[in-house]
Amino acid sequence: MAATITTPTYQERAAEKRANQLALIPPEWRLSPVPLVESHPDALAYIRRILTPAEHALTEETDITVLLRKLSSAELSSLELTRAFAKRAALAHQLTICCTEIFFEEAFATAKEMDEYLAKTGTTVGPLHGLPVSIKDLFSVKGVDTSIGWVGLTNTPAPADKSVARTLRRLGAVLYVKTNLPQSMMMSDSYNHVFGQCVNPFNRNLISGGSSGGESSLVAARGSALGIGTDLGGSIRIPASLCGLYGLSPTPGRHPYERGNPGQDIVRSVAGPMSCSLATIERYMEALPCASPWELDQHTAPVPWRRSVASLKAKRLRIGFLVDDGVVKVQPPIARAVQEVIAALKAAGHEGMSIASLSAVLNADKYLYESEYLDRWTTSGIDALIMPNTPWVGYKPWTWVKSSAYVGYTSIWNLLGYAALAVPATTVSREKDIPCQEWLDHVPRNAGDKFNKEQCKSHRRYGIESCANFMIDDIDLVDGMPVGLQIVGGRFGEEKCVSVAKAIEQAMRWRDAARSSL
Amino acid sequence: MAATITTPTYQERAAEKRANQLALIPPEWRLSPVPLVESHPDALAYIRRILTPAEHALTEETDITVLLRKLSSAELSSLELTRAFAKRAALAHQLTICCTEIFFEEAFATAKEMDEYLAKTGTTVGPLHGLPVSIKDLFSVKGVDTSIGWVGLTNTPAPADKSVARTLRRLGAVLYVKTNLPQSMMMSDSYNHVFGQCVNPFNRNLISGGSSGGESSLVAARGSALGIGTDLGGSIRIPASLCGLYGLSPTPGRHPYERGNPGQDIVRSVAGPMSCSLATIERYMEALPCASPWELDQHTAPVPWRRSVASLKAKRLRIGFLVDDGVVKVQPPIARAVQEVIAALKAAGHEGMSIASLSAVLNADKYLYESEYLDRWTTSGIDALIMPNTPWVGYKPWTWVKSSAYVGYTSIWNLLGYAALAVPATTVSREKDIPCQEWLDHVPRNAGDKFNKEQCKSHRRYGIESCANFMIDDIDLVDGMPVGLQIVGGRFGEEKCVSVAKAIEQAMRWRDAARSSL
Repeated sequence: MAATITTPTYQERAAEKRANQLALIPPEWRLSPVPLVESHPDALAYIRRILTPAEHALTEETDITVLLRKLSSAELSSLELTRAFAKRAALAHQLTICCTEIFFEEAFATAKEMDEYLAKTGTTVGPLHGLPVSIKDLFSVKGVDTSIGWVGLTNTPAPADKSVARTLRRLGAVLYVKTNLPQSMMMSDSYNHVFGQCVNPFNRNLISGGSSGGESSLVAARGSALGIGTDLGGSIRIPASLCGLYGLSPTPGRHPYERGNPGQDIVRSVAGPMSCSLATIERYMEALPCASPWELDQHTAPVPWRRSVASLKAKRLRIGFLVDDGVVKVQPPIARAVQEVIAALKAAGHEGMSIASLSAVLNADKYLYESEYLDRWTTSGIDALIMPNTPWVGYKPWTWVKSSAYVGYTSIWNLLGYAALAVPATTVSREKDIPCQEWLDHVPRNAGDKFNKEQCKSHRRYGIESCANFMIDDIDLVDGMPVGLQIVGGRFGEEKCVSVAKAIEQAMRWRDAARSSL
Repeated sequence: MAATITTPTYQERAAEKRANQLALIPPEWRLSPVPLVESHPDALAYIRRILTPAEHALTEETDITVLLRKLSSAELSSLELTRAFAKRAALAHQLTICCTEIFFEEAFATAKEMDEYLAKTGTTVGPLHGLPVSIKDLFSVKGVDTSIGWVGLTNTPAPADKSVARTLRRLGAVLYVKTNLPQSMMMSDSYNHVFGQCVNPFNRNLISGGSSGGESSLVAARGSALGIGTDLGGSIRIPASLCGLYGLSPTPGRHPYERGNPGQDIVRSVAGPMSCSLATIERYMEALPCASPWELDQHTAPVPWRRSVASLKAKRLRIGFLVDDGVVKVQPPIARAVQEVIAALKAAGHEGMSIASLSAVLNADKYLYESEYLDRWTTSGIDALIMPNTPWVGYKPWTWVKSSAYVGYTSIWNLLGYAALAVPATTVSREKDIPCQEWLDHVPRNAGDKFNKEQCKSHRRYGIESCANFMIDDIDLVDGMPVGLQIVGGRFGEEKCVSVAKAIEQAMRWRDAARSSL
């Protein structure tokens, strides 16, 4: 009899990968059973009940400057912190499918080395000494896969770290997980056949965006204080926006990267930080040049973090703003977010300047387009532009692909290579975001605009046909979900983005204080 | 009778352009007749006899820090300095055809404005306040042509300054001439049908190189203390080398630029400074970020000049060196230049490490090639690499085009985007550079190598066939001409280049002091 060799199907190989993945979670951290979405849509609430008070306190700290101070003074050991974030990441993953590679044992060993180094030498390895940092799956880490959602790329451990992991290690960071993404990476919904559907920790019925959607889900669940994603058309800003995070898409050359799109240099994908905390974004960007990443990635420039530019300015800011790009009209909560932020900035004494159009029509000659845009940007005298990241506020899985996949609000800044920062602005409100007549009267301009409008469709509830009585199916679904905005800071405008984000935080605080004092 | 419209021939149009050009030189600065090359090959000697002692003193100062100190303290007026350099540029042009556009009147008006501004406000416009700076023809300056040697582009004044001129004006510089170049810009010999053949001021029988050959000729004649050229394959370093100058080809993104090669981004052309003085190169690069050129050119990064990296190090340097790239063997004076410099560095306590090959073979995958090269460069631990700029020491006009036009010694660093600085090292010596048996025995590897060897061919003079008795036709021609070397500093290694150039200067001084004390 001849021997029979059976080749496993891709489904079998994917199932095996997922089983191996689960086995890397310590048994005491496994959820059995994993609670159903229907009964437990809110992953954050579920996780918070499971953690010990100590684990809860450590992982709820979103400002890494606090953690780094404790780590560098040995008040807190890297091992303790890494264990806390590893546990929370493990729980988050089981609820949202946010991780791809899990390598806690290696992380604990590294954390111990960090603690020993500090104890022995009295000095830190780098400015992120002992801090656990999560990274998107496409960054290569020695010894684990870089499968980017392809079954065929599983079980192929990377022979070495590449530039992003090398940079983070030079800074003293502890790597412990890599995060989920859509198979093609060109989607705003993080699903792939290997690891499955990543969802939003605030409401597991909804997606966390993409392509850095595993990262946004993990960071929003506080399974990581700082994550590194990538952005080619909005892939950091869109998931950050959906998960209530800050997410920085830097100018190409500011942050090290690994090849994203072989042979495609017209629009360069960039890597950048994602966090619940603005201070974390700034601390990370300030630390970055300490690793001399230009020694590790050919396309990184030695640009220092200009702290004075990033500081909160006493001067009056000149802020351009745009609500509708004229292609896909944004849903009511997003329009409200822009208007509220601009109103607060104006009330705080800043200037708001409405921008009619982005002139996003691609000039056949990219060089001329770039030059003209830069001239217009510089002569406009604006400190930054505030605008939406997406025209929609939330989708169920597999809905984005049915839309026209419009990413025009974000992708124009990739084309131009301008720094852009997603910032949380508000949350969807069933009461505040009832669409008014202007939305209902809007005649869709194209298929994408039509799809987007229909996500906020009206139907009679109480038999009275007035603006106040229109209720929206999907608004009910997304009620309470984060709504983010985008601050565009121009070429190498990362510091300006941070500065304007600080001004927004201040203006919103003043607004809230004024309201509560009424 | 019908009217007859005659279209001028391209020769007629070129002659008209040259007549207009000459008319822009004040009559009192015109040479009549222009001395013949045969009777007056040395343009520098000729010019020095014509200048007044004051003009001579001002223009012989090659270190702009000295000039800028006098300008900013109003000890010297910009108008006086600009007039002196304009006169010397006018004389140099008549002897070497180094200029394209001449706009002295505009320059004098600008210089006066600078002087008035300083007198009125007590402050300077920028760090180059009042300094005349020359630039290569391809940089657009409002009101004058950017013909780059094409007849069809003459009589088309630029409607506005572009990024390089804008940057220089922000720095306070005074523009007064643009300089000659080969028509295609892809040549090491600066000839075009509009302006004619640019030659070397040290010996007008020889070329000044290209494509920034007008700039090198003008700066070497001291008609400019600081010029800005461009480099896509050696176009700053080769002419700098032939004219005894320092010429910096920076990493793309370090210096503003204007589109050089539409649609070609694989190898990016760069702009950079050329000067007789290393201090001038450094002062200029340090001043550059003050103009925020990243607001004027999309592809410039806000990288500050790192003075500490550029300083002369007390530490032992580790210097890679290469004499022969294995493709075209360098002529004896260049091999001697490398060996002398390395010997002096070793005598000064530095480490010299022979590099066998540049691995210049282009990997099909540019990204992988770049990554591997960067890894090798970084792990080698070298501070810089010292090597030739060209395998030849001098050509008569129209000879380079007959060679195989090999620019492999320089172009590899454009491909990789590494900073490289041409530095003067020695001069050709009829006595020292008699080719030894190794050169004579060398079997040419290819047509370019054969051509290069034949430029240093032997013939019997005294009937005695020994090494000492071989005399070389072209060595006689180039006797006394400058020989430059190349310092390669790696990615954003401009400061390292300057630091190593300082170490070479120091080591050569020590060597000469030791010799004279013997």
